[in-house]
Amino acid sequence: MRDILERVADGTLTPAQAEAELRGHARNDAGRFDAAREGRTGIPEAVLAEGKTARETATMVATSVETTGHALATRVVREQAEVVEEHLADEHPEASLEYDDRARTLVAHAPDYEPPELAATVGVVTAGTSDAIPAGEAAVTAGEMGATIERVDDVGVAGIHRLFDSLDGIREADVLVVAAGREGALPTVLAGLVDAPLIALPVSTGYGHGGEGQAALDGMLQSCTPLTVVNIDAGFTAGAQAGLVARAVSAARTGE
Amino acid sequence: MRDILERVADGTLTPAQAEAELRGHARNDAGRFDAAREGRTGIPEAVLAEGKTARETATMVATSVETTGHALATRVVREQAEVVEEHLADEHPEASLEYDDRARTLVAHAPDYEPPELAATVGVVTAGTSDAIPAGEAAVTAGEMGATIERVDDVGVAGIHRLFDSLDGIREADVLVVAAGREGALPTVLAGLVDAPLIALPVSTGYGHGGEGQAALDGMLQSCTPLTVVNIDAGFTAGAQAGLVARAVSAARTGE
Amino acid sequence: MRDILERVADGTLTPAQAEAELRGHARNDAGRFDAAREGRTGIPEAVLAEGKTARETATMVATSVETTGHALATRVVREQAEVVEEHLADEHPEASLEYDDRARTLVAHAPDYEPPELAATVGVVTAGTSDAIPAGEAAVTAGEMGATIERVDDVGVAGIHRLFDSLDGIREADVLVVAAGREGALPTVLAGLVDAPLIALPVSTGYGHGGEGQAALDGMLQSCTPLTVVNIDAGFTAGAQAGLVARAVSAARTGE
Amino acid sequence: MRDILERVADGTLTPAQAEAELRGHARNDAGRFDAAREGRTGIPEAVLAEGKTARETATMVATSVETTGHALATRVVREQAEVVEEHLADEHPEASLEYDDRARTLVAHAPDYEPPELAATVGVVTAGTSDAIPAGEAAVTAGEMGATIERVDDVGVAGIHRLFDSLDGIREADVLVVAAGREGALPTVLAGLVDAPLIALPVSTGYGHGGEGQAALDGMLQSCTPLTVVNIDAGFTAGAQAGLVARAVSAARTGE
Amino acid sequence: MRDILERVADGTLTPAQAEAELRGHARNDAGRFDAAREGRTGIPEAVLAEGKTARETATMVATSVETTGHALATRVVREQAEVVEEHLADEHPEASLEYDDRARTLVAHAPDYEPPELAATVGVVTAGTSDAIPAGEAAVTAGEMGATIERVDDVGVAGIHRLFDSLDGIREADVLVVAAGREGALPTVLAGLVDAPLIALPVSTGYGHGGEGQAALDGMLQSCTPLTVVNIDAGFTAGAQAGLVARAVSAARTGE
Amino acid sequence: MRDILERVADGTLTPAQAEAELRGHARNDAGRFDAAREGRTGIPEAVLAEGKTARETATMVATSVETTGHALATRVVREQAEVVEEHLADEHPEASLEYDDRARTLVAHAPDYEPPELAATVGVVTAGTSDAIPAGEAAVTAGEMGATIERVDDVGVAGIHRLFDSLDGIREADVLVVAAGREGALPTVLAGLVDAPLIALPVSTGYGHGGEGQAALDGMLQSCTPLTVVNIDAGFTAGAQAGLVARAVSAARTGE
Amino acid sequence: MRDILERVADGTLTPAQAEAELRGHARNDAGRFDAAREGRTGIPEAVLAEGKTARETATMVATSVETTGHALATRVVREQAEVVEEHLADEHPEASLEYDDRARTLVAHAPDYEPPELAATVGVVTAGTSDAIPAGEAAVTAGEMGATIERVDDVGVAGIHRLFDSLDGIREADVLVVAAGREGALPTVLAGLVDAPLIALPVSTGYGHGGEGQAALDGMLQSCTPLTVVNIDAGFTAGAQAGLVARAVSAARTGE
Amino acid sequence: MRDILERVADGTLTPAQAEAELRGHARNDAGRFDAAREGRTGIPEAVLAEGKTARETATMVATSVETTGHALATRVVREQAEVVEEHLADEHPEASLEYDDRARTLVAHAPDYEPPELAATVGVVTAGTSDAIPAGEAAVTAGEMGATIERVDDVGVAGIHRLFDSLDGIREADVLVVAAGREGALPTVLAGLVDAPLIALPVSTGYGHGGEGQAALDGMLQSCTPLTVVNIDAGFTAGAQAGLVARAVSAARTGE
Repeated sequence: MRDILERVADGTLTPAQAEAELRGHARNDAGRFDAAREGRTGIPEAVLAEGKTARETATMVATSVETTGHALATRVVREQAEVVEEHLADEHPEASLEYDDRARTLVAHAPDYEPPELAATVGVVTAGTSDAIPAGEAAVTAGEMGATIERVDDVGVAGIHRLFDSLDGIREADVLVVAAGREGALPTVLAGLVDAPLIALPVSTGYGHGGEGQAALDGMLQSCTPLTVVNIDAGFTAGAQAGLVARAVSAARTGE
Repeated sequence: MRDILERVADGTLTPAQAEAELRGHARNDAGRFDAAREGRTGIPEAVLAEGKTARETATMVATSVETTGHALATRVVREQAEVVEEHLADEHPEASLEYDDRARTLVAHAPDYEPPELAATVGVVTAGTSDAIPAGEAAVTAGEMGATIERVDDVGVAGIHRLFDSLDGIREADVLVVAAGREGALPTVLAGLVDAPLIALPVSTGYGHGGEGQAALDGMLQSCTPLTVVNIDAGFTAGAQAGLVARAVSAARTGE
Repeated sequence: MRDILERVADGTLTPAQAEAELRGHARNDAGRFDAAREGRTGIPEAVLAEGKTARETATMVATSVETTGHALATRVVREQAEVVEEHLADEHPEASLEYDDRARTLVAHAPDYEPPELAATVGVVTAGTSDAIPAGEAAVTAGEMGATIERVDDVGVAGIHRLFDSLDGIREADVLVVAAGREGALPTVLAGLVDAPLIALPVSTGYGHGGEGQAALDGMLQSCTPLTVVNIDAGFTAGAQAGLVARAVSAARTGE
Repeated sequence: MRDILERVADGTLTPAQAEAELRGHARNDAGRFDAAREGRTGIPEAVLAEGKTARETATMVATSVETTGHALATRVVREQAEVVEEHLADEHPEASLEYDDRARTLVAHAPDYEPPELAATVGVVTAGTSDAIPAGEAAVTAGEMGATIERVDDVGVAGIHRLFDSLDGIREADVLVVAAGREGALPTVLAGLVDAPLIALPVSTGYGHGGEGQAALDGMLQSCTPLTVVNIDAGFTAGAQAGLVARAVSAARTGE
Repeated sequence: MRDILERVADGTLTPAQAEAELRGHARNDAGRFDAAREGRTGIPEAVLAEGKTARETATMVATSVETTGHALATRVVREQAEVVEEHLADEHPEASLEYDDRARTLVAHAPDYEPPELAATVGVVTAGTSDAIPAGEAAVTAGEMGATIERVDDVGVAGIHRLFDSLDGIREADVLVVAAGREGALPTVLAGLVDAPLIALPVSTGYGHGGEGQAALDGMLQSCTPLTVVNIDAGFTAGAQAGLVARAVSAARTGE
Repeated sequence: MRDILERVADGTLTPAQAEAELRGHARNDAGRFDAAREGRTGIPEAVLAEGKTARETATMVATSVETTGHALATRVVREQAEVVEEHLADEHPEASLEYDDRARTLVAHAPDYEPPELAATVGVVTAGTSDAIPAGEAAVTAGEMGATIERVDDVGVAGIHRLFDSLDGIREADVLVVAAGREGALPTVLAGLVDAPLIALPVSTGYGHGGEGQAALDGMLQSCTPLTVVNIDAGFTAGAQAGLVARAVSAARTGE
Repeated sequence: MRDILERVADGTLTPAQAEAELRGHARNDAGRFDAAREGRTGIPEAVLAEGKTARETATMVATSVETTGHALATRVVREQAEVVEEHLADEHPEASLEYDDRARTLVAHAPDYEPPELAATVGVVTAGTSDAIPAGEAAVTAGEMGATIERVDDVGVAGIHRLFDSLDGIREADVLVVAAGREGALPTVLAGLVDAPLIALPVSTGYGHGGEGQAALDGMLQSCTPLTVVNIDAGFTAGAQAGLVARAVSAARTGE
Repeated sequence: MRDILERVADGTLTPAQAEAELRGHARNDAGRFDAAREGRTGIPEAVLAEGKTARETATMVATSVETTGHALATRVVREQAEVVEEHLADEHPEASLEYDDRARTLVAHAPDYEPPELAATVGVVTAGTSDAIPAGEAAVTAGEMGATIERVDDVGVAGIHRLFDSLDGIREADVLVVAAGREGALPTVLAGLVDAPLIALPVSTGYGHGGEGQAALDGMLQSCTPLTVVNIDAGFTAGAQAGLVARAVSAARTGE
């Protein structure tokens, strides 16, 4: 910090430059979108639609498109998606909009937005069909960060041969997000078979004791094979961290 | 009940016979050993040495040998085992005594005790070396009930090929006890590969959140493949229930 | 594994046969129904209707009938059942369909389906009327696996004489599923009176601390008489494991 | 309150009398012993020896004897009891002292202390030998309050016939304290068979999930037969409340 | 038991009499109402309306009136009460019916039903208005058992002077039920001021950590003054046990 | 921030001054003691002796005295205190040292240290003798911050008259720390009687369910009278925050 | 107490005066509003609208205005607010009424009500927009107690530069309420940067493990910088205690 | 799989080659060390010394050195380290051995072992001195996998300026492990400031509610900035996953 201040003192840095450097980011008037965060952390700001009205979601998506050139919304139900679509058609008629109802995500791009492209692959693996939403959220998030997505679905441990049949594809990914509910054994089994970094994503399935994803989370934290974990249903977090790994690998690969 | 009472009324049953029939068991003066329970439920009374002094354990083992012809003690540490051995050498010099320090169990037989023999096999499978004590307890308990024991060790999911190499042996058992700690995934994986009844035995390993076997228990209760569960480290319970299945199969097999 | 591979090498086994043998099952194109699992584990795949739309349930029931010749659906409310009935009447007009609203289960058989028959009995015992759904689910599951079902209802410990009046019937079963909510004492009491394997099924009754079946589950795990446990309301799991015991006993009995 | 104050105003009550009346108790200089509480609530102050040194326990027992004529200490291990005995022999050589090592309680009476006598019986029932300490604590507490104690031991539900054999004796008590650990089913079963008020006392036995008395407590709170509960191992509380019931019955019986 | 059987053997007892004596109760064809329980335990069977349809509740109330001469239903919302009223007017036009919407209880008496009368008082004390339902349930239950009810409301510790103003009335009760939510301090404070047996009734108020009555329950179990506890909102249980104390006191008082 | 940087740019602020101002504190070479924090937050750095060796504690106390002129250590057992005393006698023979074994705190002052003096009083109230350590810790911490301490002990709700007798003294404090274990009712009762800010300090007493201070913490969080809470046994935190209130009041009072 | 009583005895105090003095408050016939509490504790009685009908809320608001001259209601949704407005327009047409839909609070003043004014500032800081309701509740409560409110919003740690930009404003407050959900890190970070007393207010955001504010609460209780805590969403409590600190500071400042 | 089998059939693959390929690893006779796992997953097998005797630890370290050329042991206390050193000096006198008592890890290399070298950096950041053991474990593990380690210590949020001073160094790492106990806020704050993948490592500090690392774990799972998490004190897991990221980056960087 002393260096920067001394450069301000001797005039080689303007106060404004110093401020930007000390902060590492600029302030965003929209307030809600910390537009600078994407530059700072490499992760896009996402609109969590759950608990918001369709109108609120639409406004925030529009603001994000204006401020950052693109928008990512998660946990968007179909009714909300339709309102967002109408609103965006009014406000930004040329922007593209894609709603993925398997992932309940919504992605919008301004016409001049150039999405990032990474030379790296994120594998997104699910144990069963009820893992689709969080896994989809992870896939869309990492995809929006520029990673190539490799999906492998329905390879839960109850029919473990399907997992083995899919191993070659899984092993090609640079980093894995592995979603599972109930007892959540899939990431543990898979982490013993691959050498890529693996992020386990517990899913809120199961009833009774340890239900709603708690047993899955706890089992992943206790996994006898090393892996990292995110919270129950936290597909955005898993996708964002997988995206960061992909970005690091891509930068190394392309020599950036 | 009316039948029995009417037979007492018409004299075809003595009151003493009626009492025995109504109760289905006799009272045991020793108090502590419900000697009748073994006849009633098919499961031997066991002495839980944990929390008892070596002396108390020794007395109860001796009483069990006197009352029922044999004794089974669990969670016996070596120091307790030595005291029991001395005590039994004094009181019942001809009784046999076997201490299994992998299982921390102790079995004693009076010289005239005829152990039961079942025409059925209990498979006892462990994920790792830290599952040895509860698994051993299950094996000794089912063995004392007369079952043949098939042990398969160290086939945890972290190195899942070893499990596959052992499947043929595992599939020969009439009923399985499968012990695992940490995330406890082994019983879930195995239950998808076999068609024998499977009792999952969570083991108190692991630290931090979900440690001490809690994640293993919860994961087994949430297993995406059907299985039954006993409490953490409850090897005696798992072995006793597996023994009952073996007994039922054996009786059917031998036409009893 | 080496054996199989050597037999492939010397031509005594075709690659396809080797694949089947190594896997122990065939792949099912329908994806969702692991049709091979029933052959592998002896337990039918079940459709969990809870959380699915009536339409989704209907489609999956139809697919199951097509793929495996029969279907078992659980937690089906009447509205769903009616949609399934209509759908099946369209798609498979000759298939039989039975909805049990006490158990909320639905069973369908293709006209040429030959249900298994076991020479063994599963006893299903309930403490009270609120245990009907999970207990019914267990009964229907074990029944669909071929077991004879012996139901004994409303014998909870609050009026313990009724339990004693029913003991003779209960003792004739080869394996028991015992359902109870609130404090869940019935399986513990019953396990001290019978010598059949006993699976305790906690039911989500009770409010306040330990409510929703938690006290019942915990008490069953702590039972002072040995028994095995499934998760709260997990009637399908209890029935499936009881069915496996019945199958093992039946095979031994009929010399298969 | 106005009445008292007006009587002070017109001189029919001295300020000191008014103070005593308003407070309903006198202040005790020893500080620790709220000597007035016994008069106010009918329950003796007890010294909880757990977590105290033998010396501290001894001093408090002596103070209690001085202040109230008697002392009751709970959770006293033998080593503490010996120190208390020596100390009391020095300070109050004529006081009686009784240490009950089954209950880990210690009772001392000054020579002129006249213990209360109630015309009522408290039944103290245990499921097994590991319930002895809390049950003993309850029995000694109610006994010190003057109740006749009827002990019925080892009648746990694992061998339920013993409970039925003991019912006549149990039914003679005016109020019951029923201690049980593990799944804690005994109070629930017993409350369905008797018409006396019943206080369930969970005991800290059992390991694994729901261990240390948690399953017993939860099951008692969820009991399908009405009963009241105290905390795990809270024998003093159970005995004190049973003593109050006995006192109320006795007062009614003797017309006080 | 031997005595009874010998009396059957020598003809001084008929089998039917012996059966009744051995059981201590008769069997009730209606099944649902264990009519004998009221005789055996002194507590009326109650219909828990929560989770039942209005029609189911109405049927069970009618059955109870037929079988036992009276009915007590708890957690009855107004809509259910109206249906019960219509149904009872059809089936038993001369029966009385009283719905207490503060307590959400419903009491019906056949015209020839003679309610019990006890010479004893149950005090029912509440901390605040949100304790009304469980406290009312306790009051109605004990009242239906014949006790005189003394209500003291809104004397929570936040305005502790009101409690002191009410102490004289509270002290006249033979046994107390004290309801409180949030931190549940009232029973602890009150138990230090009275000498009657005190049953603490935690109420499901409060949000956040320890909400829904959990902090109240835990605090009552930890109370530094001895008291007994029932589960959260378990007004029926509290009232039933208070009723049993009142019955014991009344019997002693009237010399029965 | 822009202001500061512009003043650096125009030379009215040296880089070093700017750095200090931007940080609000200087860096401390000792590393462990954030000596600047006391200036920044008004709360002294404390050495938590629990989990440290006596030697480590002694070194840190000495460093604190050197760096800040004084030291405060908490949870110091007598053995540690003696080692600290010897070490300080060697290193800083003229420093004063005070060990309070009721509070398990240790305070050291360099000879030239001028302790702060506040014109404000912190009341520290305890329910019973087992609250002495955390309450003492709070008192010593606030005292070291300069507040006058008013202690009121043993006024728990089991003997509530003692609390009323002490109210006048309690009401004179500017802010209160109120410590209680078990059910922790005292702060709730007291907060309804005073108008000073009140910090509730739960204490790790009590066994069984809700023991170790959990019920006390939960009850304080649920208190029906408004108050703030610190963690179980967090006497330092309570004292530090009470000290900040006292400091604010004192500054206002003395016009600083 | 003796003093007062002696003054009654010698006539210098009437019994009525003595009663008022002994109680420190008058009794309020409305029952529900402990009008005296505001005088006694300095905190206004608040109407918690959650769980009440709009009509009930309206009646209680009106009663509060009548009894105390003002009313504060919390957790009022818009529909309730409209009913209250209509009701108050009927009953007290000249009373003012303000509904804050960000805070979901409602404040009413009788025309002659003179709100208190304090010479002190309460800072209310939020991490994000989802903290608005509890934080607003705190602000309105402290405001109604007379404090000046300084709001600083959206300064959560995810974009920590905004917090630093706001520090100067925050440091001017005499006491802080800091609201945060999810991991709740903001109060911990802020408490290391300011020297005012700080009350942390956890907010019920977040899903999965530790969701609904539990992680925030736990993290605040574990904060490595000293601070006090209130329960999840307990904005009224936080505001009331902050108001008491402001009142104490104001009194000191103005020499009252 | 079919491909491999067909190549066996046509002789282009020997059965042994096919077996190795199908398994992806060889079997290790030592049993305990899944020597193949390091090849399969890229993570070294580690010996967890906690819960093992010094002798057991020594044997396993020696076996690891023999089998894999190196050994990594974690949670090794000094006494164990000394025994290992003696044992290794006997068995493998030329092997190197390094004990890091800050990390409680032990690393041994056979003389001919060539440790991997990665062109990537793992940053290991701690909040305070009590995070040293888990953080050290992570650093040693990633180091043994070949990563360059960048340590930044004592930058917890209580003195947040130190964190800002260290940001440049932190930003140079390719992946971060960030350890913190108590409320665990550091990873959340840091993840908002960097764009490298970040693994949060909760540490078992803190007492009372949320203590032993639970609040830290929960807060990290709830973090408002995306990050991944491992279990409490799971330094090995964090280091292993960070090592995998480093390996992926290094491979990309060096074009492997």
